Amino acid sequence: MADLTEKIPVAVLGATGTVGQRMLVLLEHHPWFELVAVMASSRSTGRPYGEVVEWVQTTPIPALAAALVVGPCVAVDPPPIVFSALDASVAADIEQSFAHAGCVVVSNASSHRMHRHVPLLIPEVNADHLALAADQDFGTGAILTNPNCSTIGLALALAPLHQTYEVDRVHVVTLQALSGAGMPGVQAMSALDNVIPYIPGEVDKLREETPKILGSMNDGVLVNAHINVSAQCNRVPVSDGHTLCVSVGLRRPALPYEVEATLAVFRGPDDVAALPSAPRLPIHVLNAVDAPQPRLHRDLEHGMALAVGQVRPCPLLSVSFVCLSHNTLRGAAGGSMLVAELAVSRGLVSGSG
Amino acid sequence: MADLTEKIPVAVLGATGTVGQRMLVLLEHHPWFELVAVMASSRSTGRPYGEVVEWVQTTPIPALAAALVVGPCVAVDPPPIVFSALDASVAADIEQSFAHAGCVVVSNASSHRMHRHVPLLIPEVNADHLALAADQDFGTGAILTNPNCSTIGLALALAPLHQTYEVDRVHVVTLQALSGAGMPGVQAMSALDNVIPYIPGEVDKLREETPKILGSMNDGVLVNAHINVSAQCNRVPVSDGHTLCVSVGLRRPALPYEVEATLAVFRGPDDVAALPSAPRLPIHVLNAVDAPQPRLHRDLEHGMALAVGQVRPCPLLSVSFVCLSHNTLRGAAGGSMLVAELAVSRGLVSGSG
Amino acid sequence: MADLTEKIPVAVLGATGTVGQRMLVLLEHHPWFELVAVMASSRSTGRPYGEVVEWVQTTPIPALAAALVVGPCVAVDPPPIVFSALDASVAADIEQSFAHAGCVVVSNASSHRMHRHVPLLIPEVNADHLALAADQDFGTGAILTNPNCSTIGLALALAPLHQTYEVDRVHVVTLQALSGAGMPGVQAMSALDNVIPYIPGEVDKLREETPKILGSMNDGVLVNAHINVSAQCNRVPVSDGHTLCVSVGLRRPALPYEVEATLAVFRGPDDVAALPSAPRLPIHVLNAVDAPQPRLHRDLEHGMALAVGQVRPCPLLSVSFVCLSHNTLRGAAGGSMLVAELAVSRGLVSGSG
Amino acid sequence: MADLTEKIPVAVLGATGTVGQRMLVLLEHHPWFELVAVMASSRSTGRPYGEVVEWVQTTPIPALAAALVVGPCVAVDPPPIVFSALDASVAADIEQSFAHAGCVVVSNASSHRMHRHVPLLIPEVNADHLALAADQDFGTGAILTNPNCSTIGLALALAPLHQTYEVDRVHVVTLQALSGAGMPGVQAMSALDNVIPYIPGEVDKLREETPKILGSMNDGVLVNAHINVSAQCNRVPVSDGHTLCVSVGLRRPALPYEVEATLAVFRGPDDVAALPSAPRLPIHVLNAVDAPQPRLHRDLEHGMALAVGQVRPCPLLSVSFVCLSHNTLRGAAGGSMLVAELAVSRGLVSGSG
Repeated sequence: MADLTEKIPVAVLGATGTVGQRMLVLLEHHPWFELVAVMASSRSTGRPYGEVVEWVQTTPIPALAAALVVGPCVAVDPPPIVFSALDASVAADIEQSFAHAGCVVVSNASSHRMHRHVPLLIPEVNADHLALAADQDFGTGAILTNPNCSTIGLALALAPLHQTYEVDRVHVVTLQALSGAGMPGVQAMSALDNVIPYIPGEVDKLREETPKILGSMNDGVLVNAHINVSAQCNRVPVSDGHTLCVSVGLRRPALPYEVEATLAVFRGPDDVAALPSAPRLPIHVLNAVDAPQPRLHRDLEHGMALAVGQVRPCPLLSVSFVCLSHNTLRGAAGGSMLVAELAVSRGLVSGSG
Repeated sequence: MADLTEKIPVAVLGATGTVGQRMLVLLEHHPWFELVAVMASSRSTGRPYGEVVEWVQTTPIPALAAALVVGPCVAVDPPPIVFSALDASVAADIEQSFAHAGCVVVSNASSHRMHRHVPLLIPEVNADHLALAADQDFGTGAILTNPNCSTIGLALALAPLHQTYEVDRVHVVTLQALSGAGMPGVQAMSALDNVIPYIPGEVDKLREETPKILGSMNDGVLVNAHINVSAQCNRVPVSDGHTLCVSVGLRRPALPYEVEATLAVFRGPDDVAALPSAPRLPIHVLNAVDAPQPRLHRDLEHGMALAVGQVRPCPLLSVSFVCLSHNTLRGAAGGSMLVAELAVSRGLVSGSG
Repeated sequence: MADLTEKIPVAVLGATGTVGQRMLVLLEHHPWFELVAVMASSRSTGRPYGEVVEWVQTTPIPALAAALVVGPCVAVDPPPIVFSALDASVAADIEQSFAHAGCVVVSNASSHRMHRHVPLLIPEVNADHLALAADQDFGTGAILTNPNCSTIGLALALAPLHQTYEVDRVHVVTLQALSGAGMPGVQAMSALDNVIPYIPGEVDKLREETPKILGSMNDGVLVNAHINVSAQCNRVPVSDGHTLCVSVGLRRPALPYEVEATLAVFRGPDDVAALPSAPRLPIHVLNAVDAPQPRLHRDLEHGMALAVGQVRPCPLLSVSFVCLSHNTLRGAAGGSMLVAELAVSRGLVSGSG
Repeated sequence: MADLTEKIPVAVLGATGTVGQRMLVLLEHHPWFELVAVMASSRSTGRPYGEVVEWVQTTPIPALAAALVVGPCVAVDPPPIVFSALDASVAADIEQSFAHAGCVVVSNASSHRMHRHVPLLIPEVNADHLALAADQDFGTGAILTNPNCSTIGLALALAPLHQTYEVDRVHVVTLQALSGAGMPGVQAMSALDNVIPYIPGEVDKLREETPKILGSMNDGVLVNAHINVSAQCNRVPVSDGHTLCVSVGLRRPALPYEVEATLAVFRGPDDVAALPSAPRLPIHVLNAVDAPQPRLHRDLEHGMALAVGQVRPCPLLSVSFVCLSHNTLRGAAGGSMLVAELAVSRGLVSGSG
């Protein structure tokens, strides 16, 4: 376990976007981490963060963050942990430069997620994938990633089912929140009283990331799970909270009530459960006839728990259900915090082991 | 074909609800039908319709309808055609009493839909099912039904695919509009910024009605199609327009572009295409990368056409797509008009043949 | 009256924006005008309109418009009438160049509205202001303008009150629709479940345009009305339809029912009432306890009528009421059509008199 | 000050409604109060609260509350403090019976607000009005009230202005949230993409309550402030947070920046500022060009602070501004907590002084 008598300095890359803002909120009172730098594109550098950011969170800008002068995304004398909320279009090179400089980069960007030496982490599910980073060749540095905001809910729900019954087929239709589109995001006139049945790149992320997350380590090599995912993705007029309608095919038969029990008893490894951002219960199985709902359940356990309901037999596959997770907390900024805490806890962060 | 030098008198049962109101709007300028009576529950009878209705349509109350005194739902001297927008809880007995009195009852209620002698009609798809009514034993009267508002879009999309490739499995997730819940319907606080993943009875309607609609007549008997439907139904913050995310399993292989072509060239029988409420094109295949969308496409062809997009290979079944139809026009009031026009056109309405 | 055996050719400047799109829809079946050219910024020129526009209307792109190659905003051989939906930042020079070339420019932009020789027209209210254009020095050309989308509803409501009771003070709070912000407009995350109490420039437009519109011609010179306007402007999550909460101070006392009657009997000049885009009734006074509402009343008379309700005594000024008008129809594209029709009808368009 | 070594037992009347639910959430971790009873109409009595309530809060039902058996609203052996979230239609008699039984009733209902012996309290503004209760004739019991959910924001903003500049006229247009309508409240189809310009009774509450709240005690008698209020009230598609567009007439001149300063420095009495539910700063003056906004600012200081922005000169009165407060926290349940804390702090609750 880390020696935490002193907080670990951290920086945020891409701090002005919606995910970057959420990271700053989560870091404000974080028990282990201390924000020392915010970095963004050249449009914003050289002025105090509080003056350049278009703040859209419902809590005020943390005073400490507001006063920091925004720096460029350059790896000069960086802190041991760097969170990346960069856009995928620029993330790849910048993140590598910070890893080369010895940082543990915890990235919410998609750039490196599918690289075979980069772990794609949901700590309750696959903390052992952290071992992949040993082959990254960055010295004390590393690149760790968390999944796409819709994949994370799916994979977290599938994990206990896969362990117990072996999942081979998944059909998922997503109803995704507007905050997932970042800034500037969707136009209001396209969002109001509407559904947009297309989100660029989202279907592929669900198809590709899910088998990697649920894969197993074999002699230091990750073997993907054999799960075939069919996905359709929609944007709906919801602010936060991705709702997923899921049907799964199971190799070993299971009745709905067994599936509910398997989800409800799921816990991550003990050391993960003890991390500051970990929910007490990763999956809440809700009995209300009309649960889960974004407005009522996205904030369960500070937005870090998955809510599941509507578990029923599926006439085509085995079982269907609906799951819901907060896309900018568990699905982005909160997920990144948990990954960084795991890295510290398991001794990956140099000087903190 | 009907002798239409004079319009056919019609009545509307359950005229104060949202579907009943839509029917009155459609009847205002209908070339064949003339509204002569509005009937509703005892709460509303005895006063002019314009005074008792809580009008929620975006066009003014038709002046003729507003002036009619609301009568009770009693089959005394009824006109030859009666539209029923009654709630399913009371529709069964009332509709039968009107059929006994010699009316052709065109019902939007679910009460009789699954009866083996009651046709469940999408005129472009199964106009020949009208023959079922011959066994109803109501003399000149009959009960005809249109499908549930979400089934109608699904079955219309499946019809040409079933004819050409034989559909055996369907997975559908619905994103249904608020207007489908009638009045009082969903509470605003439950609708705003939310998804409700449960609509009572809706899954069963999709499962049961679809095989009946796509069934084939064999010696006067209807043989249901062998189609297994898995459905999950959601209410989303959209006023009008049900969006359906569909994956279909086809017995004969088809590529997405073939499926698109099959949908695009679909036409109903010639006499159906000539009916006043029939769309010029029953199915519009849209090429825009983000189509179909409720706000943009629910009003295609006065809300009577189905919009289809996102046709892609499905990794689990054969092909997936998204379809959209206006739930209170094609999916309710407009669908009922078309059924009544079919009945007139094919000589089922006494005195109009 | 114009010789209308042949339609008058027209062009649209700024045809790809939301107002430009609405103009094309209104021109599709216009009885007097025929679209011959669409012009836009250099980003869009040289390709068919149907390929470059991001169409957001709820009816399909008119086929004729879709096929037109988008031209630059250059006044080479222009048709006699040019509609301008240009952004105010570029409208001034371009509109003048078309006026110099002999066109009657009907502009929805704010650039020239407050120029003393440019009429700011609501045809039912101040058709006589057209005479101002005589001093414009553009030969057969002219620049005519319609008011800002929120001013138009206010001024139309005030006009009959000013004629009858003399208005001296107006307090108005607007609840404006999202479509008024054009494209890209408001971000969805800022619009959902929110009110934005600030619209740049809007307060000044209400304050300045209202006295000009309600001014009177005196020897060819326009004398502004002496009306002091206090305004606060809000963006609300409504797609179309600006709602205005108005209190007016009247020099001559009037009871609410008198105000209602004065609004209800208001008609424009006879020749205006006969124009193709003119509503049968410019102002609809609604009695329903909760009227007017954007969803129910914005489309009255094809979106060209003003809906008024909630007429009550005001404890501070004289009378308060709520009025509602469709901001992209009466408040923009439809208003421009009506102005152009007025210009034709009164002989201002060369060759059409 | 109360002896708070032991918590004071409290009950909630009307515990199943939206305000009652909010009260239970606020009581869950309250430092002074301990929930011992929940009471509701006869529909709900006799079963555990968790089984009868239709819970609509975004945090789970407090476990202690869920387990309490719902009792009838009968004053048998009641605790010293009773919160009333009853509907106004039944509140009057029930509240009096509890006061007669010796309870301090803190009521969110309108029934007794305007009675001359009942204080209408915003503790930062008029804590001295508590003295009115001395004339209530209920022995140790009393009825205390908090204002209507829209009045509370207005009166809190006016208080420092009235103290400093004397307010004589107020024009207010409200944009009120859906949660203010309680349950079942507004229908979704009436709320989506719409504004409803009418809320029954709301205008009168703003007109009548404001002068009472801002009145001054003179020899134990309350003298209302001489403030004339003109109000128009609208329901908008916002979940929580009432936005008010306000213009005020001041007897002593003040520039906008002076008004901003006067609002920003406002504090309640010291003992009020020390109450557990009191915000650190009652009024936050926001500088952002587009503040305040419900989504961003309703939760300031746990929903107990008022956000003010858009302070400008008013061409008709003196100064205009926009203020925003959380209608079910500061405007209802949170306001009631603060009133109860004041009563305890000032020795009104028997046995707790």
